[in-house]
Amino acid sequence: MTLDDPMRMEARGVTEAAPDISPARRLQARIRIAGTGVYMPATRRSSADIDRMLGRTVGRTEKRTGIAERPVADAESSSFMAAEAARGALAAAGLPAGGLDMILSASSIPEQLIPAMAPLVQARLGLGKSGIPCFDVNASCLSFVTAFDLAAQMIEAGRCSRILIVSSEIASRGLPWRQDPDTAAMFGDGAAAAVIGPTEGRQGGLVASLMESWSEGYHDCEVPAGGTRYDLHRDTRSFIDSAFFRMDGKAAYRLAARVVAPFLDRLLAKAGWRLADVDLVVPHQASRGAIDHLSGRLGIPRGKIVDILAAHGNQIAASIPTALHHAFAGGRIGRGSRVLVLGTSAGFSVGGLCLEMP
Amino acid sequence: MTLDDPMRMEARGVTEAAPDISPARRLQARIRIAGTGVYMPATRRSSADIDRMLGRTVGRTEKRTGIAERPVADAESSSFMAAEAARGALAAAGLPAGGLDMILSASSIPEQLIPAMAPLVQARLGLGKSGIPCFDVNASCLSFVTAFDLAAQMIEAGRCSRILIVSSEIASRGLPWRQDPDTAAMFGDGAAAAVIGPTEGRQGGLVASLMESWSEGYHDCEVPAGGTRYDLHRDTRSFIDSAFFRMDGKAAYRLAARVVAPFLDRLLAKAGWRLADVDLVVPHQASRGAIDHLSGRLGIPRGKIVDILAAHGNQIAASIPTALHHAFAGGRIGRGSRVLVLGTSAGFSVGGLCLEMP
Repeated sequence: MTLDDPMRMEARGVTEAAPDISPARRLQARIRIAGTGVYMPATRRSSADIDRMLGRTVGRTEKRTGIAERPVADAESSSFMAAEAARGALAAAGLPAGGLDMILSASSIPEQLIPAMAPLVQARLGLGKSGIPCFDVNASCLSFVTAFDLAAQMIEAGRCSRILIVSSEIASRGLPWRQDPDTAAMFGDGAAAAVIGPTEGRQGGLVASLMESWSEGYHDCEVPAGGTRYDLHRDTRSFIDSAFFRMDGKAAYRLAARVVAPFLDRLLAKAGWRLADVDLVVPHQASRGAIDHLSGRLGIPRGKIVDILAAHGNQIAASIPTALHHAFAGGRIGRGSRVLVLGTSAGFSVGGLCLEMP
Repeated sequence: MTLDDPMRMEARGVTEAAPDISPARRLQARIRIAGTGVYMPATRRSSADIDRMLGRTVGRTEKRTGIAERPVADAESSSFMAAEAARGALAAAGLPAGGLDMILSASSIPEQLIPAMAPLVQARLGLGKSGIPCFDVNASCLSFVTAFDLAAQMIEAGRCSRILIVSSEIASRGLPWRQDPDTAAMFGDGAAAAVIGPTEGRQGGLVASLMESWSEGYHDCEVPAGGTRYDLHRDTRSFIDSAFFRMDGKAAYRLAARVVAPFLDRLLAKAGWRLADVDLVVPHQASRGAIDHLSGRLGIPRGKIVDILAAHGNQIAASIPTALHHAFAGGRIGRGSRVLVLGTSAGFSVGGLCLEMP
């Protein structure tokens, strides 16, 4: 999708063209989202199918999760989906892949253990001989938010001017269908990307960003295996048995309920915004309960919340950029829109961005 | 180890105290390394032991690899080693763990697939209720260099003032002893950390940084499994069989030989340095051949190269911070030292930092 006019192709340090911003409206980074893209796997699995698989009354899974169907990457690889989403974002930005000056992969799980994922996206985009720097940022479900914040800083510092951020997730590889089917049914696969660039002199950008990590909740949501905790070759059974997502939903909810509201106060204060100033909230699609919490406990009107859960499920780090893409595609973000991106992640972390769209 | 006086405890935006730097000496970030620390696993495996295991003449493995012994994490976890190294760096910086305002994990392989690794380090440091933001940066063997560069930017922007960067690796979990024992013998385990802070008004800091990625070499050095490429639960055999490090040494060498020299020229030009201006080179300890390449092809005097390969092997992302720690501990870095940090990584990427020590 195209957002305003395409970014111009000349390299240009942002600092050379500082717009007139009074101290009271000081921005953290003068950046814009030049384009977004998504990839939805071809296979969709309905909650009715899951009910039948589990021998449940049809309707129960959808009622419990609020999810009607979720995309499943049966045939697609993580890097294929990432590259498809990236191509969409580049097309929307009017930018050839070779015009990028950085590629950030922002996923919780890569395609290979070594190398990192971002160079594989570079290869898929035909940029193997480009030298464009590539690395991965991982903050679990908040990976896109964290990478966005870093990208914004690099652009503000004049070090880069066109950064691709892509999140691609195949949650379906490690879901606990036997152990905890309601949790397993929460997740979907997919990829989403954004191209970030300078504002080209317009007002707006990243007004404030914030992240807080509370590792007291580290084990509330986890896949214990997959890294070095279990030795695949010496203790194969433990590795396999622990390579499933597991969640202590009550503990996770208690921690989130305690830390999210004060976090939001701090983020808004940093931006100089009141909650009523926010035009649109793009939240992580963690679960029905988490999105309802935004309107219930935090008092955000439902009409201001981008809610794509029913057709996507929780796509881990791909959720937020997918929701962002749908907000643009649905015409819900225009020039001057004040957008609050907000999410939680395994870790446990809370993160958010206040964007005033240039 | 203590480097100059400990960082002061007050939070302070760096931008408020801009020192008088002429445009010709413009720094990328006014930062200093306030402390470094390492953790070496208790078990050391000698090359003679490996020769005996492989039924080789004793002496052959050391002759081929240039490595006498390598640390092996038989009993230690990734996060334990990370926390030990972090404690060393904090003590050297004279900073309590709670004085940090960000924790970056910079390893190629985490302890768990989900959550990210950095919050687990936070938990190990007793900071579970601190809110200190945590995330992971992964650029394979260059992870520390990339995280350092990001940390420097965040400090320069006044967003953070004390950042812990920690790299912890257990290479020994996936080494190809059957398939390629000479490659397997190249690696060691371990962890290293650094605390980065502002210069407190002194001259110096990060003069220049650069990274280039050439994914044409993506598959030259890799662990194909471990992520989503193979489905552990449906195709266990492929996953296990591909969960070993493998390397096309000749292809990797050809690519490195082509791109490293021009990369170094570009990095030095960005810094305004000639190679002769460099007092010390802290290289990735990739292999005997890679370190010899620095003195041979690139013409760096051996006496200026930090070479800890013989007692460590290639510790993946932990190599560079371990070498940096040894350079400080050996008194090889003082105020005003011009230090070139330089490495390559699976990806294939090249990265470097030019530091003028405040």
